[in-house]
Amino acid sequence: MRNFLKFASVIVTSVMVLSACNSANISADKQSAKVAKANTSSQVIEPHKNLNQKPIPLNIERVGEHEVNIDMTAQITDIEITKGNLYKAWTFNGEAPGPVIVVNEGDTINFTLKNMDPSIPHSMDFHAVHASPSQDFIDIMPNESGSFTYPANNPGVFMYHCGTKPVLAHIANGMHGTIIVKPKNGYPTDAEIDREFVIVQNEWYKYNDLEDFTNGVPSQVVFSAKALKEGDLNTNGTVGALVDTPLLAKVGDKVRIYINNVGPNEVSSFHVVGTLFDNVYIDGNPFNLMKGLQTVMLPASGGAVVEFTVTKEGSYPIVTHQFNHATKGAVGILKVTKDGLEDGSQAMSH
Amino acid sequence: MRNFLKFASVIVTSVMVLSACNSANISADKQSAKVAKANTSSQVIEPHKNLNQKPIPLNIERVGEHEVNIDMTAQITDIEITKGNLYKAWTFNGEAPGPVIVVNEGDTINFTLKNMDPSIPHSMDFHAVHASPSQDFIDIMPNESGSFTYPANNPGVFMYHCGTKPVLAHIANGMHGTIIVKPKNGYPTDAEIDREFVIVQNEWYKYNDLEDFTNGVPSQVVFSAKALKEGDLNTNGTVGALVDTPLLAKVGDKVRIYINNVGPNEVSSFHVVGTLFDNVYIDGNPFNLMKGLQTVMLPASGGAVVEFTVTKEGSYPIVTHQFNHATKGAVGILKVTKDGLEDGSQAMSH
Amino acid sequence: MRNFLKFASVIVTSVMVLSACNSANISADKQSAKVAKANTSSQVIEPHKNLNQKPIPLNIERVGEHEVNIDMTAQITDIEITKGNLYKAWTFNGEAPGPVIVVNEGDTINFTLKNMDPSIPHSMDFHAVHASPSQDFIDIMPNESGSFTYPANNPGVFMYHCGTKPVLAHIANGMHGTIIVKPKNGYPTDAEIDREFVIVQNEWYKYNDLEDFTNGVPSQVVFSAKALKEGDLNTNGTVGALVDTPLLAKVGDKVRIYINNVGPNEVSSFHVVGTLFDNVYIDGNPFNLMKGLQTVMLPASGGAVVEFTVTKEGSYPIVTHQFNHATKGAVGILKVTKDGLEDGSQAMSH
Repeated sequence: MRNFLKFASVIVTSVMVLSACNSANISADKQSAKVAKANTSSQVIEPHKNLNQKPIPLNIERVGEHEVNIDMTAQITDIEITKGNLYKAWTFNGEAPGPVIVVNEGDTINFTLKNMDPSIPHSMDFHAVHASPSQDFIDIMPNESGSFTYPANNPGVFMYHCGTKPVLAHIANGMHGTIIVKPKNGYPTDAEIDREFVIVQNEWYKYNDLEDFTNGVPSQVVFSAKALKEGDLNTNGTVGALVDTPLLAKVGDKVRIYINNVGPNEVSSFHVVGTLFDNVYIDGNPFNLMKGLQTVMLPASGGAVVEFTVTKEGSYPIVTHQFNHATKGAVGILKVTKDGLEDGSQAMSH
Repeated sequence: MRNFLKFASVIVTSVMVLSACNSANISADKQSAKVAKANTSSQVIEPHKNLNQKPIPLNIERVGEHEVNIDMTAQITDIEITKGNLYKAWTFNGEAPGPVIVVNEGDTINFTLKNMDPSIPHSMDFHAVHASPSQDFIDIMPNESGSFTYPANNPGVFMYHCGTKPVLAHIANGMHGTIIVKPKNGYPTDAEIDREFVIVQNEWYKYNDLEDFTNGVPSQVVFSAKALKEGDLNTNGTVGALVDTPLLAKVGDKVRIYINNVGPNEVSSFHVVGTLFDNVYIDGNPFNLMKGLQTVMLPASGGAVVEFTVTKEGSYPIVTHQFNHATKGAVGILKVTKDGLEDGSQAMSH
Repeated sequence: MRNFLKFASVIVTSVMVLSACNSANISADKQSAKVAKANTSSQVIEPHKNLNQKPIPLNIERVGEHEVNIDMTAQITDIEITKGNLYKAWTFNGEAPGPVIVVNEGDTINFTLKNMDPSIPHSMDFHAVHASPSQDFIDIMPNESGSFTYPANNPGVFMYHCGTKPVLAHIANGMHGTIIVKPKNGYPTDAEIDREFVIVQNEWYKYNDLEDFTNGVPSQVVFSAKALKEGDLNTNGTVGALVDTPLLAKVGDKVRIYINNVGPNEVSSFHVVGTLFDNVYIDGNPFNLMKGLQTVMLPASGGAVVEFTVTKEGSYPIVTHQFNHATKGAVGILKVTKDGLEDGSQAMSH
């Protein structure tokens, strides 16, 4: 554990990929090269070298009408943040952002964190629960496990993250994700929704570099899709992940996105090109309804449920309208076809 | 078109003008010089050299009870961003921000974009409409025109911008503006309003420098006024534009501002000194009412309708309360006189 | 007064203290040193050298059912921004942020500002009132006083600050604070509240350095507690102030925090670890209710009333979830014990 601060050689090299919206007739390669910002300046700590722990799936099991068991791991796993370039991330369950968790309003959560990191303690801070941070969000030592129980009484879209010091380093190195607490009485619009997705926004900085985390600008800002059910697209926070593999919908669909900005530092101006949000529930609480928004403002850690209709075939870019961040990667595509299938009639032009 | 990335000589030099609030007894010149940040580091592309296309007025024509024709141009026009210093902007209709567009909720928009740029494709992304981005917001080649039809079914204050890649470059070089969709049933407060203005906030960076757009801080942050009707003040995004020529109101007036933050990167904390916002409609939707705000948080691309009362004669500074941005230019003055005329009783002290 | 811009020697040296959340098993000292950013680059102006004016208490006196007299000073006073390191702040009443002011909706405020600064004019801009900025928020010359009268008709949590040019310099050097206007009919939740606190977030930069204020990142971001009544904790904006002396509550308490982000530049993502905000009143107006938020987005100058329940003993970190800012100091602790007293059963682990 004491080796935590002894840095070793660099394993990550990355070149920023400039991603942006719809049709492209001009190569942006030269300018893209100019704005590239590598993640290479700092170093993998000694005990993490050559460590790439296979992702352990999230285990979530309902054990009572209002009680769920959730088992998660803290583990060191390579995450692709731009094509072909890996970041030896500190993760939950080998994903960064971690797997999405879905529970019901009123559930009691029996939570176990197994820390597979050989050298650093980790912990879990769920924004969804009432807990005593100094008792329930405490550090689990390397190779140990800890269990905690807490109620999830508030519906919404919440961040979770490691709360071990320095907290910024643990979040920025990849230990963040989203927990959805489904409202007891649902959303008033539940019956209208045809498709739903979870998108998480996060930033990447120079590797494990607290100076860059604290005073720098992000090297990449990215979206990931997290699977709500078996078979759903599930990606890490990789530049281009949701461009190469678009989300899919059908003409006329009413689409819901659970969006969560896990930061660690930046706010988000979440927007879908070509449509407006009919309904926005701030932090996912049914009470906090706004209508007709073009863009929803998300604080760091903030969430929302946004709902919109796609009226025509085509590719609908999903962005943060803080366009420096979109340029650094925070772009996805919602591909709308006649039948909602990948090989629909609409070729993408981006 | 391939010359797009061949840069030539610099034509823009600018010195930041420090603008700030009310009375000033101390010269800030020396400090102002310290914070100056020129827009000179990069270069005008070859085909744009010596090009300064005369602004073509926006053409908007109602052709049916619920149908309007809108003709716009993409053109290269010099924009004054600080006194005497020009930025060879990529613009809509020779203005940056572009001219404000006003339509009614429920309108069908027949839109034509004529691209007068000899070298680069441009396009139009209206946040106000439902459209297929890959069909309806597509690139128009140099010296060509393209026409599109879409519905504007959501009331509010929305951004429009060029969506051609790299999107950030097109927005940051000046291709942004505001479209207002008037609510079918108006705002509940319509009858109370004595004056209304449109203010747009945008940032300027080093000339056509994607690196600075992406990783830098703004050189200037500015407000412009866009004319709602013939005779209204209409300015570009020039430092000091709304200080040198204040907006005017009368003591006791209830004033409405349609505010839109077109970025490209920064959020805004919009505030008027000396008053509070009685009513704020987030993104301009009548449903999204907040009351008694001192400051409204605008995401990048976000809009609002804000309404307030001015109770005494005097000069009311309009700012973003992110004061580094106000210091870089985002200050205007609302001058309140007995009769609402320029030569009112109140001399301004700034 | 003309010496204002003649800078002299540096008196401030400061080393950033890395503060973060709950339990800490690893020393962050080495990394902390890396992210340290001193406040030393610029200089105390000549007339302020060796000046450290003793804080003059705020004087607030009710003189009628709906009328209050408020006397404040502008004065130059050393403020500790990190342990042992002083910043020769431009202050209201020798505090930075200044003392909290509480009035009632409907009050007329008779306000007097005494400027004890020997060299620079200062002024007062209350966000809580209707006023003519060019008449009522004007500069008071060194060693002079000025009096103004204005109505406070809007309930909420509002910023006040010096509005003398350059405004950014006056705010960033310490001239900011919070005025609470209590709603005529209270908040609907008043009867449920067991404890209430005022927390102000502000940033510190290099000493009196307009270049750093305008283009830099904060050296420190801090929370302070301001006393609502005799005996309440009252601190300056010092890194660690609310960690060394936690706020106190009892298990089961419903806690209200009046939060105000006085900037000058940054927005805030205000969050309390281990709980959710049952009620949030944006800018403190009872009309602007949101429920179940994990985090409230505050623009620069924005305020809120947030209410939450603490269900177990322990230490609840208070942060801005923009974690680069939390890392720079914006962390406090709410310590929850069985009896709500300092020597409760729960030792803090941070």
